[in-house]
Amino acid sequence: MNNKQKNIQEIINHLKTSGFVYQNSEIYGGLINTWDYGPLAIQMLNEIKKYWIREFITREKNYQIDSKIIMNANVWKASGHLDNFSDYLIENKVNQKRYRADHIVKDLFPEINVEKTTFEELESIIKNKVKEYDGYKCDWTTIRPFNLMFKTQLGAIDNAASITYLRPETAQGIFVNFRNVTRTMRAKLPFGIGQIGKSFRNEITPRDFIFRTREFEQMELEYFCLENESEKFYKYWIQKCQEFIILLGLKKENIRIRPHEKEELSHYSKGTSDIEYLFPFGWGELLGIANRGNYDLSQHMKFSQESLEYLQEDGSKVVPYVIEPSIGLDRLLLALLIDSYEVEKLDKNDERIVLKLDFNVSPYQLAIFPLLKKLAPHAQKIYDELLKNTNFRLIYDETGSIGKRYRRQDAIGTPFAITIDFESLENNTVTIRNRDSMIQERININEITLYLNKFKK
Amino acid sequence: MNNKQKNIQEIINHLKTSGFVYQNSEIYGGLINTWDYGPLAIQMLNEIKKYWIREFITREKNYQIDSKIIMNANVWKASGHLDNFSDYLIENKVNQKRYRADHIVKDLFPEINVEKTTFEELESIIKNKVKEYDGYKCDWTTIRPFNLMFKTQLGAIDNAASITYLRPETAQGIFVNFRNVTRTMRAKLPFGIGQIGKSFRNEITPRDFIFRTREFEQMELEYFCLENESEKFYKYWIQKCQEFIILLGLKKENIRIRPHEKEELSHYSKGTSDIEYLFPFGWGELLGIANRGNYDLSQHMKFSQESLEYLQEDGSKVVPYVIEPSIGLDRLLLALLIDSYEVEKLDKNDERIVLKLDFNVSPYQLAIFPLLKKLAPHAQKIYDELLKNTNFRLIYDETGSIGKRYRRQDAIGTPFAITIDFESLENNTVTIRNRDSMIQERININEITLYLNKFKK
Repeated sequence: MNNKQKNIQEIINHLKTSGFVYQNSEIYGGLINTWDYGPLAIQMLNEIKKYWIREFITREKNYQIDSKIIMNANVWKASGHLDNFSDYLIENKVNQKRYRADHIVKDLFPEINVEKTTFEELESIIKNKVKEYDGYKCDWTTIRPFNLMFKTQLGAIDNAASITYLRPETAQGIFVNFRNVTRTMRAKLPFGIGQIGKSFRNEITPRDFIFRTREFEQMELEYFCLENESEKFYKYWIQKCQEFIILLGLKKENIRIRPHEKEELSHYSKGTSDIEYLFPFGWGELLGIANRGNYDLSQHMKFSQESLEYLQEDGSKVVPYVIEPSIGLDRLLLALLIDSYEVEKLDKNDERIVLKLDFNVSPYQLAIFPLLKKLAPHAQKIYDELLKNTNFRLIYDETGSIGKRYRRQDAIGTPFAITIDFESLENNTVTIRNRDSMIQERININEITLYLNKFKK
Repeated sequence: MNNKQKNIQEIINHLKTSGFVYQNSEIYGGLINTWDYGPLAIQMLNEIKKYWIREFITREKNYQIDSKIIMNANVWKASGHLDNFSDYLIENKVNQKRYRADHIVKDLFPEINVEKTTFEELESIIKNKVKEYDGYKCDWTTIRPFNLMFKTQLGAIDNAASITYLRPETAQGIFVNFRNVTRTMRAKLPFGIGQIGKSFRNEITPRDFIFRTREFEQMELEYFCLENESEKFYKYWIQKCQEFIILLGLKKENIRIRPHEKEELSHYSKGTSDIEYLFPFGWGELLGIANRGNYDLSQHMKFSQESLEYLQEDGSKVVPYVIEPSIGLDRLLLALLIDSYEVEKLDKNDERIVLKLDFNVSPYQLAIFPLLKKLAPHAQKIYDELLKNTNFRLIYDETGSIGKRYRRQDAIGTPFAITIDFESLENNTVTIRNRDSMIQERININEITLYLNKFKK
């Protein structure tokens, strides 16, 4: 199946009923487009993070930190988020509902590139051309900016000084720690500082399942280098990001690189590329790589009056450039699940749902079945021993026919299943069944670790 | 050194200058008692989480989930946090400063157990007996409750319905997903659901470094079982928690179990025990294990009007009891760092700071040194190969004398260091030096993995 043929609602239903994703606060009627992760998604997310740490931090000799979600509000003054991090809202006075102006224009005039359109232009298009929307006649207000940062208050005293914000990105926590890391780790250019963590954006219209949510998780790296090397590292990290998502198992044909056009770039950006994924609802940004120049460090120097310059070996000082590969973990998870989802016809009246996930990110890696209930004690013993002596992600199942149990594992992406049968008692062998080929072979139980290790990346 | 002899300020200074902890938003003057984690702490935290997942989830056949920080506000109505999760504040009108009433009484009357004192009693003690405090004469207001949840607002419309809160604990995200996990994972009692994540409490007086902060990380397990087994599992998880912190390397003599007295227990609690650690500022709660009865699930049933009953095999329904082992990750990290911190006299004029961290949680596990600069290419090659072919946490250092480099690694807890010398070029051997004994031995470079694997737990 190609992705355009996949039905996103069908996939969401499958993920909700099989333990990947739950509606947040479901018993209280939920919360607009907010989702919790079940045991199966968590096992995937834990692995994705491990691979990110390996590929973006450890093997690159970079540094990982963890800054806080709540920081001093001046950070957001300096970064520009307090003044500029806004969506443009317009209200239809007839039904008293507010909309994102760019969403209205994108919906009704797909030929217009809203990324290149100013808010004055958006207002003029809507006021002049949109006479009916969302089932109502229209009488539009003027456009108003709405800041996307969640506001909260520290301490028990009500005053302006106690107002602060939930971070809208993890990147700024890295910039304000640039000098701390440089000093304490004796880091030498070029080097990167990364972090994994939650960020928050008060989206007016969160949508598309876990693609756009108000609370989301990022894996961001800020790679600091000299200006004259920034173009080289910009290309390096675009390449590396591509390799990373292919390592996790995404199909090349569902990925494309989209360099931003000049009009889309922030005034300080020297270049930005999105890696997009072909979601069933269209191409969407999966991750972005930006050459941010030395804008961020310079802004923080200006607002904090502290030096964030880097002392070079020749004694001269420089404000480093930064390349930022920024990955949304929730989107990456969604792409992996969509990419691997298949409905396969087996014969005239039979089909199976199968998640063809890579061995290294699948929720479970090996299922263990007793052929019959009376073999359960022996199968459980093997399960317990593997649990204790290996780090594979294992699941045990003794309910229903073997055929049903295979289907259940196919549907959650378990690449291998072993069945303990009567022959196992005699000669210590088990059948091992491959999720994708559905072929079974007989191996000695002692060879399982060796057998599975071949698939490790 | 025993912990009472350790100077917490000296330890904090060491952690700040060596890359464990940074002041949050430092270049903007910081934020009251808020701390970021540097590369060294992150490497420890990543490992602690892996061990928690292994010991509390995987090997126990429990389930891990990830619910959101922002949930439907009704969750906090049902849990009681909206009405009861408050500190009692009292203001001195003379200097117009607010204080936690229990802190004043604890400071001035250490013989009074504030946990057992009502807020009316606290007020009466302060008004009658405290005539001077914090350097000022006193004229006290009445006591007022202050809710500790951070408030924020969803969406662009100002009204009561859009008010919500940052979670003050991860536990409630588990309770509201109880039915989802039971259904989708076909979970059978007894079983646990755990999660790792940030929680937020608007503490009036955050203090004691990372011991009490407004933003902190929890590792919580909710273990569901039948009422008649709850006492057994309560004891089981107390035991397991003890074993867990000892596995990570805490010394037994710095740990004690404190069962709560009857007056301290919440009205619904069937029993709570803290595991306390001997911090330099006194015994403090490291983690807690509570038998919460079926209070939480019952409250959510009442407020949501949804059934959270568990269907037993005999067809009868039951609202399960729950045992909650709840660990504060930041406190655990602090305990591990304090526990392992030693200042050792080497001879008359020499001493070293050494963190005697367990091999499995230390930031780095192996340091790699070239004896001289000219051996750097060979040493770097060994470093790169180990980085690619093993999962050990490695650090390379070629700066300064070998003696200085050993001290540097001692101070951040690296248990082993290998030195590449001229003999290495001839026969492929290196010296490996033990952090604690400071003894060096010569081994073949190919044996390093085998050598280090012995210390894995």
